[in-house]
Amino acid sequence: MKIALDAMGGDHAPQNPVQGAVQALRDFPDVEIIFVGDETKIRAELAKHSTTDIQSRYSFHHASQVVDMTDSGLDSVRRKKDSSVSRAVDLVKNGEADAVVSAGHTGALVAASTIKLRTLPGIDRAALGVLIPADGGVFLLIDGGANIDPTPQHIVGFAVMGSVYYKAIVGTPDARVGLLNIGTEPSKGTDFCLECYKMLSEAPIQFAGNVEGHGIFKKPVEVVVCDGFTGNIFLKTVEGLAKSMVSWIKDEISKNPIRMLGALLSKGAFQAVKKRTSTDEYGGTPLLGVNGICIKAHGNSSSLALRNAIRAARRAVELQINSRIVEAMKPLHEKLSSRHTSPV
Amino acid sequence: MKIALDAMGGDHAPQNPVQGAVQALRDFPDVEIIFVGDETKIRAELAKHSTTDIQSRYSFHHASQVVDMTDSGLDSVRRKKDSSVSRAVDLVKNGEADAVVSAGHTGALVAASTIKLRTLPGIDRAALGVLIPADGGVFLLIDGGANIDPTPQHIVGFAVMGSVYYKAIVGTPDARVGLLNIGTEPSKGTDFCLECYKMLSEAPIQFAGNVEGHGIFKKPVEVVVCDGFTGNIFLKTVEGLAKSMVSWIKDEISKNPIRMLGALLSKGAFQAVKKRTSTDEYGGTPLLGVNGICIKAHGNSSSLALRNAIRAARRAVELQINSRIVEAMKPLHEKLSSRHTSPV
Repeated sequence: MKIALDAMGGDHAPQNPVQGAVQALRDFPDVEIIFVGDETKIRAELAKHSTTDIQSRYSFHHASQVVDMTDSGLDSVRRKKDSSVSRAVDLVKNGEADAVVSAGHTGALVAASTIKLRTLPGIDRAALGVLIPADGGVFLLIDGGANIDPTPQHIVGFAVMGSVYYKAIVGTPDARVGLLNIGTEPSKGTDFCLECYKMLSEAPIQFAGNVEGHGIFKKPVEVVVCDGFTGNIFLKTVEGLAKSMVSWIKDEISKNPIRMLGALLSKGAFQAVKKRTSTDEYGGTPLLGVNGICIKAHGNSSSLALRNAIRAARRAVELQINSRIVEAMKPLHEKLSSRHTSPV
Repeated sequence: MKIALDAMGGDHAPQNPVQGAVQALRDFPDVEIIFVGDETKIRAELAKHSTTDIQSRYSFHHASQVVDMTDSGLDSVRRKKDSSVSRAVDLVKNGEADAVVSAGHTGALVAASTIKLRTLPGIDRAALGVLIPADGGVFLLIDGGANIDPTPQHIVGFAVMGSVYYKAIVGTPDARVGLLNIGTEPSKGTDFCLECYKMLSEAPIQFAGNVEGHGIFKKPVEVVVCDGFTGNIFLKTVEGLAKSMVSWIKDEISKNPIRMLGALLSKGAFQAVKKRTSTDEYGGTPLLGVNGICIKAHGNSSSLALRNAIRAARRAVELQINSRIVEAMKPLHEKLSSRHTSPV
């Protein structure tokens, strides 16, 4: 299996992508990596590692440009044709790679993938499906920010894709779906929410109604759907608060030597929670709905997060996620087309 | 100063409102409380406390109905005219009380206050301003959920009201304002965000651009503005995650006796963070923009939270928050009216 890695994407590139790839190559013997980006820089980074055992399983695809965080995602596809992320997506499009992984500019990856790979049959919009820690496991939030202004019809697509991905990746037979809203009653929320609620109730999914931020971490549902604006606000808030709470606890502990001793003894508990809430562990968010496997890693990804993003790509290919999505979308189409062809 | 307390509002009513009021009466000698609701039940609850020292400073206003959580906020004003929350608002309207405090149905309080008290001159929509813990203090999120579908013009009003309230309550000369968005660049977000950004840039406030959930707890700004849908999602997510993180840490600690000993020694640090992130401490969210002081306490308020909500009402009256808001809105009106009267 070949994975095209955007070696120039992310805050610590090419260092962390290269190191993550080296780890992945060692851990997953069926994986081959195509490093996409400035070949000289990538080779220089690789030279810091001993790669004798894995060097037969990586290659290079030079790309002269890098998308900056100040670039517009859509513009970057048109104006930076030789960017590492665009070239990595090209490799999937041309069948030279099975999947693309990037820790770079989210908008650029979403735009390049949507434009070049196109969406799957029956899917109008792709969406980011993000795994989030909760009581006794994880839930999937979709959309994490690919589409800030979707229609209720798109939300139904997100719900189907999210259910398919969750069941395949986590290995559960069921995936209850909740609509992220400001109250649990069906009458709550904006007109958009009301329309989504109605359409989700009729969709071939296990719709469980509205969910609120209050209870969401107790995992009342496996899949949480929302528009990409709300989803992105949610994600960043969760990340920001989790980090701040850890730093507040550290501040308070450092105020007093007895507390410091106590913290030393209970360190394992914090490490476990830190690990649980760390994005590194889940590193790798699929852009679901495009005709190809496309995994976004966090911009701030560690090498472990990048290794795990490669693992996520590998699993998505192995599990044939896209065939499953197309299959799951069929009942929706049949319903829609039977409506369209019925006599008026 | 007279405060009308909805004694029937909240998950633990009349118990917690009554207990919170008893505490407030003892702590703030200038406060008088009017208990609004089922007089028999309230008296029975009061009988559990020794009130000899404070009994000259409370009275009763009977109301036969209670708004349930399943009621629609707007409908409740029309259909439950004798509800405790409606009657408490009436007391402010009629000048019999200086402020109203309720831990009941948010929608009912917002609807009753907006309809009966009307908005302040120059304000079209009221908004909930919620204090949230952050590095080195608190920030104010506005709107926390009073208006799920405001216009950019309303958002400007929220920004002005939020700045006034923050400066008065926290006692700072400055209040930077940030727009909650999915990126810090001015080009980020929905069309609604773009229009808000533009209007906020021209408003008589200290606009500091967009803010993201990532960095928000480091307090880059004192006031965060957004629509009430996004704000409510934000608030509930923060509450849900803070609680879950504490419970995850407890779970991990209880797995091992050494960790438990450590936790005992560092207990003070957790209590400090718990106190810092507890809604009880800030208990009392003003509904800013209505022509009267109206404080919403959390539905799940403890007696301490209710005592603090009464304190918040007292401070808002003392600081003449509404006169300050009207004053701060003037430049906006003058600008708008000069535009309207300028020759075409």
